[in-house]
Amino acid sequence: MSWIVGGVKHGNEEDSNLGIDWVLQYDFSELDQTEAIAEYRSLVQSLTNAGLRVQVRHGHGSSLLVCIHVPRDQLGRMVHQSRIKDWLFGISSTIPAGPGNTIAAAETPSEEIRSVYHAVTWSESMGGAGITPGFGKWKRVTASFPLHDQDACSELLSKWNRKGNLTMEDLDAIRALFGEKVAFYFAFIHCYSLFLMFPAALGIFVWWFLGPYSIVNAVLLCAWCVVFVEFWKLREFDLSVRWKVDGVGQLKVNRAQYRWEKEVKDPVSGEVKHIFPAWKQIMRQFLLLPFASVASLALGTLIVATFASEVFISEVYNGPLKSYLEFVPTVLFSLSLPAITSFLTGIAGKLTEYENYRTQDLHDLANTQKTFIMHFITSFLPTILTAYVYVPFGHQIVPKLDLLRRLGMETFSNKEFVVDTSRFQAEVIYLSMTAQVFSFAEEIVLPYVKHVLWQKWQNYREHKAGLKRQRSFSKATDLLLIDPPQEVQFLRRLRSEASADEYKVEEDILEMCVQFGYLALFGVAWPLVPLGFLLNNWLEVRGDFFKLTLECQRPPPIRADSIGPCVLGLDFLAWLGTLSTAAIVHLYRGPISEVRLSSLLLTVFIAEQLYLAMRFVAAAVLRKILDETLSRDEASHFAVRKAYLETQQARYRSPDSPTRVRQRVRFHERVDVYSSDTTVSPEGSPSPSSTTEQQPLNEDLRGSDREADFWDSRQCEPIEAGSKIIRALSESKVQLESKGKKRA
Amino acid sequence: MSWIVGGVKHGNEEDSNLGIDWVLQYDFSELDQTEAIAEYRSLVQSLTNAGLRVQVRHGHGSSLLVCIHVPRDQLGRMVHQSRIKDWLFGISSTIPAGPGNTIAAAETPSEEIRSVYHAVTWSESMGGAGITPGFGKWKRVTASFPLHDQDACSELLSKWNRKGNLTMEDLDAIRALFGEKVAFYFAFIHCYSLFLMFPAALGIFVWWFLGPYSIVNAVLLCAWCVVFVEFWKLREFDLSVRWKVDGVGQLKVNRAQYRWEKEVKDPVSGEVKHIFPAWKQIMRQFLLLPFASVASLALGTLIVATFASEVFISEVYNGPLKSYLEFVPTVLFSLSLPAITSFLTGIAGKLTEYENYRTQDLHDLANTQKTFIMHFITSFLPTILTAYVYVPFGHQIVPKLDLLRRLGMETFSNKEFVVDTSRFQAEVIYLSMTAQVFSFAEEIVLPYVKHVLWQKWQNYREHKAGLKRQRSFSKATDLLLIDPPQEVQFLRRLRSEASADEYKVEEDILEMCVQFGYLALFGVAWPLVPLGFLLNNWLEVRGDFFKLTLECQRPPPIRADSIGPCVLGLDFLAWLGTLSTAAIVHLYRGPISEVRLSSLLLTVFIAEQLYLAMRFVAAAVLRKILDETLSRDEASHFAVRKAYLETQQARYRSPDSPTRVRQRVRFHERVDVYSSDTTVSPEGSPSPSSTTEQQPLNEDLRGSDREADFWDSRQCEPIEAGSKIIRALSESKVQLESKGKKRA
Repeated sequence: MSWIVGGVKHGNEEDSNLGIDWVLQYDFSELDQTEAIAEYRSLVQSLTNAGLRVQVRHGHGSSLLVCIHVPRDQLGRMVHQSRIKDWLFGISSTIPAGPGNTIAAAETPSEEIRSVYHAVTWSESMGGAGITPGFGKWKRVTASFPLHDQDACSELLSKWNRKGNLTMEDLDAIRALFGEKVAFYFAFIHCYSLFLMFPAALGIFVWWFLGPYSIVNAVLLCAWCVVFVEFWKLREFDLSVRWKVDGVGQLKVNRAQYRWEKEVKDPVSGEVKHIFPAWKQIMRQFLLLPFASVASLALGTLIVATFASEVFISEVYNGPLKSYLEFVPTVLFSLSLPAITSFLTGIAGKLTEYENYRTQDLHDLANTQKTFIMHFITSFLPTILTAYVYVPFGHQIVPKLDLLRRLGMETFSNKEFVVDTSRFQAEVIYLSMTAQVFSFAEEIVLPYVKHVLWQKWQNYREHKAGLKRQRSFSKATDLLLIDPPQEVQFLRRLRSEASADEYKVEEDILEMCVQFGYLALFGVAWPLVPLGFLLNNWLEVRGDFFKLTLECQRPPPIRADSIGPCVLGLDFLAWLGTLSTAAIVHLYRGPISEVRLSSLLLTVFIAEQLYLAMRFVAAAVLRKILDETLSRDEASHFAVRKAYLETQQARYRSPDSPTRVRQRVRFHERVDVYSSDTTVSPEGSPSPSSTTEQQPLNEDLRGSDREADFWDSRQCEPIEAGSKIIRALSESKVQLESKGKKRA
Repeated sequence: MSWIVGGVKHGNEEDSNLGIDWVLQYDFSELDQTEAIAEYRSLVQSLTNAGLRVQVRHGHGSSLLVCIHVPRDQLGRMVHQSRIKDWLFGISSTIPAGPGNTIAAAETPSEEIRSVYHAVTWSESMGGAGITPGFGKWKRVTASFPLHDQDACSELLSKWNRKGNLTMEDLDAIRALFGEKVAFYFAFIHCYSLFLMFPAALGIFVWWFLGPYSIVNAVLLCAWCVVFVEFWKLREFDLSVRWKVDGVGQLKVNRAQYRWEKEVKDPVSGEVKHIFPAWKQIMRQFLLLPFASVASLALGTLIVATFASEVFISEVYNGPLKSYLEFVPTVLFSLSLPAITSFLTGIAGKLTEYENYRTQDLHDLANTQKTFIMHFITSFLPTILTAYVYVPFGHQIVPKLDLLRRLGMETFSNKEFVVDTSRFQAEVIYLSMTAQVFSFAEEIVLPYVKHVLWQKWQNYREHKAGLKRQRSFSKATDLLLIDPPQEVQFLRRLRSEASADEYKVEEDILEMCVQFGYLALFGVAWPLVPLGFLLNNWLEVRGDFFKLTLECQRPPPIRADSIGPCVLGLDFLAWLGTLSTAAIVHLYRGPISEVRLSSLLLTVFIAEQLYLAMRFVAAAVLRKILDETLSRDEASHFAVRKAYLETQQARYRSPDSPTRVRQRVRFHERVDVYSSDTTVSPEGSPSPSSTTEQQPLNEDLRGSDREADFWDSRQCEPIEAGSKIIRALSESKVQLESKGKKRA
């Protein structure tokens, strides 16, 4: 794909972002002039109040591009403050050096940009400018993004083209550029692709020797799914420790939309927390159930209708225009799906808003859950219908569709209807090969072409408008409207980025989950599925990076410690996959007509138990094996504590006698037998044995007389006393024994 | 049960432990005199070398009781060291005050005794005496225990008798006296009993209105099991935070028997770790499978044989002596079970030893796992056989047992064999009522009577032997062999405790798990089962405490952060219970002969899915609801960090200018645009907005000329510029629109 990189390689001149840390696009097309100016003034005022520098250029159409620069000293202080907060919440184990107003250098560009992001978006009370794009007062701020670092991006992309596989370094680089949330996606696709190599190799072997629906393949594939999911959970944890983001969710700030019911001051930490009762949220979360039902019903009906008419036309209908009519259902489906999906997405968004999550993270998580349900239905239902309804029951159902024939029309094939049992396999092959290529084109190539053409059109229009305007305004305004020659290239890029899409990493993660789902649910039908996915992913990872850097706005470098709710989705798909694989193998290995329901149920039931056992074993074994690599976090905490302890000990070094800590009252309120509280032992000698030798033996025994008697009454030492007792007792034993013998 | 307490209430005279912290029983009955004396000398030498004070008395038979006292200063230092270690490993969040040789007062008796335990058992290199009872050099040390605190115990027991329910205070008291491992057991039985109140109440209702095998009861019972297990997991975590033992397993010392393969120095923490490869241990752990098979086979055969012959005799046989013969199988079973169990326990012990765990905790855990398997088979198999084999298939199987009739003997009933379908329910009723009473008697009453009688016999024998001896030894030795009058009572107690059993808390926990298992697996057959268990547990918790304090040695106060592998067992039983409950209800609701296999399978399959869903929901909801109570740990860590941060900040308070941290090299090795490393801003002003106002605007902009141009080239301010652009653009839009209108 070096042709792409070649095409976008920029000279040094254009690479520089001119010190612009952040860009806001202010769209005033719906306001009249004076309102727009007033609102714009207040926007700039908010920004400068927060200590940010501002510059402005005009954007495409009726919009302004507000460029923001954070003075380096302020940025350094924010970085330091953010690190202190991390430390306070236990995210990082090392306390940042220096006093509160230290100016720290960011370790990565993303750390820097995150502080810029906070400076722009956090509320005034937290020291930010309080700009919440698209919400409330700032709903006309239509874009809010940092500029891409073109140099670094093209360098990374060209580096990836030269090698087959990503390394940990590449992931670190993505993290440094785009933050942990994006990096987790690339880590996931990387890990997943590496894991895919095993079923891909197995698939070639099975394809050659065993054919589809092989039991060996089924078992190994299910085991692979389980092991992969369990491995990823650990890998995710490992990465979150490496990137110091483990548990980062809790220190996120409240969403602007969050409505709390009471403020509680934590008695221990002294922090003020805004609480919304958990049970209320749970009650609201249960609305997920009706939502899922509605979504299933709406999407399910659409899919079933499409499916039925498609089957009807392709297998029953035999009249005129058949070759054209065959495409009609799919076209209708494709046309109506976006409308239904966007309707459901709207409901999902409102529901999530109603559920009232404290942080943006939790909000996104809940939203992704709902999207997952919709994706699940649209992606898997058609194939599920083919596998479990059409093929097994088609010969009973399809003839009933044949209403028209009963009406006496003669356009239909008169031959007996026969279910096309290979249809399921054909669909799986299509999913793993053609559909992947199509979706790649749809997701990456098409938007890129569209974006480029749109930019060219906009620039052309601007140019013409500019020529027109030259004649109508004052010279000063003209200077503002016409880009100075040294900025033309840069501003073109700025405008292009401002009108680009936001990068939604959740969608890419979901796409991979769906792919994993195909493999887990239907992979057994065609052994080459994993190979197809592996090849696709090789391209996908590069394509996604291309999309991220050249088609989309640079995302704010948000931190995350996981790929989010998709882990749950993977778990679910691995479970459902096991059941589905077992059922498919059972159904399709022999003639379908001979399958009995009870034996099918038994197979699926046993498969489920195997799945549960396998998951348990995989989790335990992986955890054990990877334990050593996973304990780094604990070790670094240990090291910090140890260092701190040593500094503490050094402070105490001067006094010679050991310090005594106040005695507490004992458990049952009885005064301690050894009221040694007032005595100070002569010397805190380090060797414990020497203590007893130097001190008189009863030094610390002054409880009661009986105690003193016990420890000191006999003249003889314990060794002597014990030896005597041993001698006496064994002799008396011998005597008794000999007596016994005599008697016998 | 106040009669018991009344009987054992001691006067103050006998209560005092005379400053004895620990007791070792040295048994020299197998050695000759000189060897015994040499070994005893080396024992005392080891103890005194470790700084411990020693006194000796003779025990029952050929044994010595070595009483150990740890000087209070040394003990205080050990307590402090132990706390520092806790802090280093992150177990507690507060660093103990004072220098390294501080003498700290223990917070609870168990903390003190734990340090004593360490002083006696830890190896010489760690500052202990290295006495490992029953192992290696010290295999003749047959008992090693601290003395009971009789006052506190009887106070606690009498307190419990006066109220129906334990409180958190009582659990804290147990923790203070016996350590966390024992306290977790009592917390578990307490939590379990409280939870039992719901199914007990439900059971009464169902028993009255619905009868056995009710679907409502089945669903609620299963849901209850799942909720209880999930709740206990959280409760356990909560307690481990309260008692500051969360994650305590990792700081435990190596077992003396542990064989490591390499020593590794942790690069981060600098600790030396002894590593035994994880994969080797896993391979060895897989030996659990053959063990489980052998155990199942051995115990299974025994149980099946017993069961078959019992059925045969009670339902088929009709000859002479029937009423006596009926008991023969049970008697044979009871006689052979201990032999088989002890054989299997022996194998289990060797296996666990072979698996080579680093700490005693992990070792015990692995051993408990194996015991759990055996308990599971012996406890549940008989009832499972009744429920799923005898009743459904009895009419086919039992007649085949009837071999003798074919041989022409006439001792058998000639009537057609009819399966006794109520047998299953009768067994469940027996399990929940009679069996509980029996096991209580067997576990607590019988051993107590035995122990008391044995002590009386021993004392009588000693007395006689003492009278005999008086005539045969020197006066000095006589003084040693005859207890001085003021110590008679105390030494009697000492000897009694030395010969008492060790308290094995794992067995009590397992017993409760088995009870939970009965409820989960078979509870639906008789609605009053939970009520029976609830009543039993009221007695059980007191009985167990009675056993712990009066029948057993005081256990070393070992720390633990959970009830161990039994949590896994509970999970397993809740899962199996759901399947079993579904199957039982399906089988027994109607006539068994009408049950079809496929519908049964479907029921069980659906039940399993419901179980999985329920567990997921229960875990999520409970976690969410209890989140606030569970976050105390994090809050206290936060408070500590905050306090520490403040002391750090105070140190930096003197210098006025902000500190700058060394700039790191950026991601793509390009020199940072803002090389502000050398500039020090004039004043680290706390308000960010004031910074920009005071400084000249381009102070921190010296990257390139183009940048300076961008931010400063225009005379007009961004607000002015933006306003102008807005004006220009909206006017040109209006012009364009009016033009468009004109054209139209």
